[in-house]
Amino acid sequence: MLAALFENVRTKRPLIHTITTYVTANDCANMVIACGAAPIMADDPREAAEVTSICAGLDINLGTLTERKAEAMRLAGMRSNELDHPVALDPVGVGASSFRRETVAALLKAVRFTVIRGNISEIRTIAKAAEEHPRGVDADKALSVTEETLASAVDEIKGYASKLDTVIAMTGAIDIVADSSKAYVIRNGHPMLSDVTGTGCQLSALVAAFCAANRERPLEAAAAAVCAMGLAGEIAHGRMTEQDGNATYRNYVIDAIYTMTPEELARGAKYEIR
Amino acid sequence: MLAALFENVRTKRPLIHTITTYVTANDCANMVIACGAAPIMADDPREAAEVTSICAGLDINLGTLTERKAEAMRLAGMRSNELDHPVALDPVGVGASSFRRETVAALLKAVRFTVIRGNISEIRTIAKAAEEHPRGVDADKALSVTEETLASAVDEIKGYASKLDTVIAMTGAIDIVADSSKAYVIRNGHPMLSDVTGTGCQLSALVAAFCAANRERPLEAAAAAVCAMGLAGEIAHGRMTEQDGNATYRNYVIDAIYTMTPEELARGAKYEIR
Amino acid sequence: MLAALFENVRTKRPLIHTITTYVTANDCANMVIACGAAPIMADDPREAAEVTSICAGLDINLGTLTERKAEAMRLAGMRSNELDHPVALDPVGVGASSFRRETVAALLKAVRFTVIRGNISEIRTIAKAAEEHPRGVDADKALSVTEETLASAVDEIKGYASKLDTVIAMTGAIDIVADSSKAYVIRNGHPMLSDVTGTGCQLSALVAAFCAANRERPLEAAAAAVCAMGLAGEIAHGRMTEQDGNATYRNYVIDAIYTMTPEELARGAKYEIR
Repeated sequence: MLAALFENVRTKRPLIHTITTYVTANDCANMVIACGAAPIMADDPREAAEVTSICAGLDINLGTLTERKAEAMRLAGMRSNELDHPVALDPVGVGASSFRRETVAALLKAVRFTVIRGNISEIRTIAKAAEEHPRGVDADKALSVTEETLASAVDEIKGYASKLDTVIAMTGAIDIVADSSKAYVIRNGHPMLSDVTGTGCQLSALVAAFCAANRERPLEAAAAAVCAMGLAGEIAHGRMTEQDGNATYRNYVIDAIYTMTPEELARGAKYEIR
Repeated sequence: MLAALFENVRTKRPLIHTITTYVTANDCANMVIACGAAPIMADDPREAAEVTSICAGLDINLGTLTERKAEAMRLAGMRSNELDHPVALDPVGVGASSFRRETVAALLKAVRFTVIRGNISEIRTIAKAAEEHPRGVDADKALSVTEETLASAVDEIKGYASKLDTVIAMTGAIDIVADSSKAYVIRNGHPMLSDVTGTGCQLSALVAAFCAANRERPLEAAAAAVCAMGLAGEIAHGRMTEQDGNATYRNYVIDAIYTMTPEELARGAKYEIR
Repeated sequence: MLAALFENVRTKRPLIHTITTYVTANDCANMVIACGAAPIMADDPREAAEVTSICAGLDINLGTLTERKAEAMRLAGMRSNELDHPVALDPVGVGASSFRRETVAALLKAVRFTVIRGNISEIRTIAKAAEEHPRGVDADKALSVTEETLASAVDEIKGYASKLDTVIAMTGAIDIVADSSKAYVIRNGHPMLSDVTGTGCQLSALVAAFCAANRERPLEAAAAAVCAMGLAGEIAHGRMTEQDGNATYRNYVIDAIYTMTPEELARGAKYEIR
């Protein structure tokens, strides 16, 4: 299954409208290219909906949010819904400010999201409209899903997916990608992925690309993207030498997606269905 | 000729005001440094003209356009014209939205451009004010210039150069850099250059740097920059190992400009004049 | 001393609010991670102060300034002062426009800075409100501090530190980090650091991180960060092969901070106190 999903990205080469933070935009664009899709960035209300119209999918990321970008996200999201394009949401640091929380709340009302990708704090903040403050844009280690808490976490994520009527891709030490009834528990990845800024942003852009190339199967497409990113993190770590650090690792992760074949993804993916 | 043009960049070290998208700004800055020039970025109307005044050349790029940036481009362009500095225009994705098309139309009225650098779709959109929609910011492969269509393409680009009274640097599988009467047909480059976001943006910044260091010869300067970028793409590809992908390639392209000598450019350039 | 200061960054992992230019934001974020701290970026007045509240330190950088970002800087800076968090200022290209000079003047009135990090032109522009125009964002070589001018430069920097009631970190061929009475003269570094865009921005973010983890010792913390960055430049250069250029060097500098141990910093640091 994973191989076919990835193969679709490589053959269909969907154009992905990526509205993301300037901190990680370059890496997101190169990651979208690496997987076989094509990126286009436009974040102004004057062109956001029009640019979305020529694309096959949309990725919305809350990093370094401004009111101008929030309006562009709303317009692009609504147009994507009209066109029945998949839309991914990355609520980066949504717990860090009321501006981000209010923007997400407004987006959730205006736009139907295909997948919401975040760490457990971000997902909880969205789903519960809770007051929790995640530690910056990184997963709070204390809140990570472990083997002990996995069963309840799967139920929790399925519940959010049901409540929000979307696929949830919750990433951390163990990843859970779920809709209301089915969950992929994914054990790919490497801790060093959290030592590179924007690997989460890159993954959300990947999710949008996989969903755009596999429109009828958003749950499986999102799971495949999460497996691919995790596997890329493993492959990249395998190349590291003693003097390499997080900058070289950043390159190797994107390289690994670029050179990964659909068969390698199928072989390297470590997941179970719950 | 090429060696001398490149040598001038290295010895004069012109300061280049680069107004570009946040997606590729870091790479553009490092590319400007790699060729021997120096970058400065300022994209707000409050300082754009003033910053241009202390520079020797200007590069304007339409990526992730906003109204604020469009006004900064206009002011910086007009000041550059007053000071007789070369100005390069990169109409990224101009076919993707009416906002970009209208901004380009307004810029073409207000500013005299030394060189316009784009793929064939972008150049046609500008020159013909046509309704064609390029596929995102990449050259539409079906519209690429081939050996069969080369002769007519050269005439076409010369015609646009005449009509717009500028040098046109049209890049693709084969590059054509032309004014109204003379064209450089350039066969350097590697297909993998299109697998890195912003190599076009980087080239436009290079063109501005080469023109700033060779003010009397904009056609030759632009052709030299296009040869250098293509040659860098070849050299970079020669370094690739099996696990390297587009992120490592991105670094190697900039590295190749940094380490390239003027003599190597002269030896490696593959061009003919038509 | 240096080892302990660095060790504190690694163990306390302070969250650093970084308001910087899109040109270098990705590298700044990865550099903050490389040293052991965590970055969060937010540059809009609607959330800047709130985001600062959950952080341990703030870095303000004037690159690609806008009015919106200037207001965010002011609000975040004032909140940091209320919370007694260290605040670093990087007056990038302050001599390049009146907009940047006026913004710095306003910031200096509203915010108490822990450390101001810049090249000699930028520091002089701030301290003297002089009319000097630094050459873009790079240190003007003619104004570099040499062994001959070192003694007077140390006095000059101490004078500025006294006048502005802050630590000054003046970087160049020789670095001087000083408060009103004590100066660290640092001879780490490599000329190639100036061939990568944003190494100064990265250093300022490092300074904020070191100060946040060593709140009682801002002078020593800033000196340690400057030593670390210079040493990283040396280590990175030692890895360069013939075909490597400034893009690979950029990665190696960040890698070198990531892999550096506190003991290596202590062994490799070259400084004297004056």
